[in-house]
Amino acid sequence: MTEFIPPGSRFHALPSPFPMKRGGQLHGARMAFETWGTLDADGGNAILIVTGLSPNAHAASNAQDPSPGWWEAMLGPGKPIDTERWFVVCVNSLGSCKGSTGPASPDPATGEPYRLSFPELSVEDGADAAVSVVRALGITQLACLIGNSMGGMTALAVLLRHPGIARSHINISGSAQALPFSIAIRSLQREAIRLDPLWNGGHYTEERYPESGMRMARKMGVITYRSALEWDGRFGRVRLDSDATDEDPFGLEFQVESYLEGHARRFVRFFDPNCYLYLSRSMDWFDLAEYGQGDVMAGLAGLRVASALSIGAATDILFPLQQQEQIADGLRAGGAEAEFLALPSPQGHDAFLVDIARFGPAVAGFLAVT
Amino acid sequence: MTEFIPPGSRFHALPSPFPMKRGGQLHGARMAFETWGTLDADGGNAILIVTGLSPNAHAASNAQDPSPGWWEAMLGPGKPIDTERWFVVCVNSLGSCKGSTGPASPDPATGEPYRLSFPELSVEDGADAAVSVVRALGITQLACLIGNSMGGMTALAVLLRHPGIARSHINISGSAQALPFSIAIRSLQREAIRLDPLWNGGHYTEERYPESGMRMARKMGVITYRSALEWDGRFGRVRLDSDATDEDPFGLEFQVESYLEGHARRFVRFFDPNCYLYLSRSMDWFDLAEYGQGDVMAGLAGLRVASALSIGAATDILFPLQQQEQIADGLRAGGAEAEFLALPSPQGHDAFLVDIARFGPAVAGFLAVT
Repeated sequence: MTEFIPPGSRFHALPSPFPMKRGGQLHGARMAFETWGTLDADGGNAILIVTGLSPNAHAASNAQDPSPGWWEAMLGPGKPIDTERWFVVCVNSLGSCKGSTGPASPDPATGEPYRLSFPELSVEDGADAAVSVVRALGITQLACLIGNSMGGMTALAVLLRHPGIARSHINISGSAQALPFSIAIRSLQREAIRLDPLWNGGHYTEERYPESGMRMARKMGVITYRSALEWDGRFGRVRLDSDATDEDPFGLEFQVESYLEGHARRFVRFFDPNCYLYLSRSMDWFDLAEYGQGDVMAGLAGLRVASALSIGAATDILFPLQQQEQIADGLRAGGAEAEFLALPSPQGHDAFLVDIARFGPAVAGFLAVT
Repeated sequence: MTEFIPPGSRFHALPSPFPMKRGGQLHGARMAFETWGTLDADGGNAILIVTGLSPNAHAASNAQDPSPGWWEAMLGPGKPIDTERWFVVCVNSLGSCKGSTGPASPDPATGEPYRLSFPELSVEDGADAAVSVVRALGITQLACLIGNSMGGMTALAVLLRHPGIARSHINISGSAQALPFSIAIRSLQREAIRLDPLWNGGHYTEERYPESGMRMARKMGVITYRSALEWDGRFGRVRLDSDATDEDPFGLEFQVESYLEGHARRFVRFFDPNCYLYLSRSMDWFDLAEYGQGDVMAGLAGLRVASALSIGAATDILFPLQQQEQIADGLRAGGAEAEFLALPSPQGHDAFLVDIARFGPAVAGFLAVT
């Protein structure tokens, strides 16, 4: 089992045992995180970033690791999340394979990777683990809590389980509950992995690895992370050079097919399949309505935060815009000064990673008055 | 190799050899079709329906086969396509496995199924084969040519290659060219089938059959044929009864997952995998721009038809609404009296099959003045 730990990672030992929402507990678990900037003497300038399913904690370059991070354009000196002003923490999600404890990590009881013996993972567990990092850094209250995609769910769970932990909140392309279209997509991604004979009930090795299943899962992901509109302009019907096509009668022919193939190649061996299954399932389970007597708006209205911004991309088919609007409406109903911002980004769910021209000013503008 | 031929099918022998657009030819090929109503003495009341990827020619019940067809609510006496007035022909697509010749049919040269030795299939071949049926029935000119989904492509190819064949045209959830999002989806569906070891380069049997690949392909299809909006209302986050779930830690839990599973079960053994690959690829290749010096609008403007209606559903993510608008605009630029109709159906690409309350009046209204 391979974990993929960025070289600049720092680690925080979680309380042991660390109880899990759906039962079971972890022993000797840890969280990987990175930081940028300097914490004020009064600890009042801290920002926590919780991520989507696959990113590590290396959101941007820093002294420990000068390589560009996954949100390099958003985070750094003079950037929208300005590390001259803010002390920023980014955690790798609990259950991931990028430094935090997850199904690919050794179970201290056996010395062997957990695999499917890892306890059922909830978004709420990830929230508790992230807050444990924040507390260990001496932060009493976050100036702002930022969550993207799955991290948007995690952030809401942080507010739910740790009232008062954040003065303000930016929720980006997030959702207060998983809806059936996204459940269907994720269910199919998991099925692709589980159907691969080399998945072998979670007992794969480097040599016998569910590469086909992971490739299918990743390609489905990329299709739903982007948008038809973006691809019309970006790929149209452009074909590959004939020397890039293969002899297979159903092989790659169009640029869009080779783009998916490239994305898959950069993923399948760099994310642990069991971790993928656990994190994916945790998103299906997430539902703030559980905390609002079955009403998601009531669940949101139960959260306490002074001000919030919920941002989405109009072309997002995975976490559609009305889910970000719902977050703003629900937080407002709970007393927050909450704003909803719909951006016309063509890049779909992933727009926050690439359309910094739109997401950057939105984030910077909110932080300027925070 | 199994073909799935409705009991009321009639057959038309295609000219032999039947030349294929991308090269090669078929010998002794046939088309399956069904008819409803009576052809006028002057042959002026004929309607041809060309279908999406998977339907057979049994669009509705008739004397030969009283079982309900796939467009039962649309077609029949007193229905939107009123068979008291119209003589209606529906053909099973060339390359399919439901009576017309395709990769699952025996190659007369060997007596064995063609499998991957079937020549490359184009939408244009399907158009020529459909017109051959129409001519054989003594029809000089169709009163209306109706195409749904892939059939919308086929219908445009009919107008292209057989000028004057139709006085009017209804294009439903169609497209004048495949765009990259839909290419990506279809490419992934094909990859799922090809990755299944039991596909075996097209040499599967009933016993060793690529069931997993077909299941993945079908589920991906169903996800993109419907819409998130419909599923929010229909499934929400409703869970299966616990006795319908399985022990598998990543098994079915939500209703939407079981819905997909049911769709897959009704499909995987009832559509030939090689036929699926061929038809799917033919859609990727379809591009009217080929006939307009690279300009799809010019390709459309080169088609001749007196009047046309292009209808789409606002929630269609596979053939989005702007593609139906483009068809109307392009036909209008070519001199047709062409109307574009955007329907607010929640059911996505498949809305024409189920939202008869909206699609029915649209079709009936157009035919009333045809």
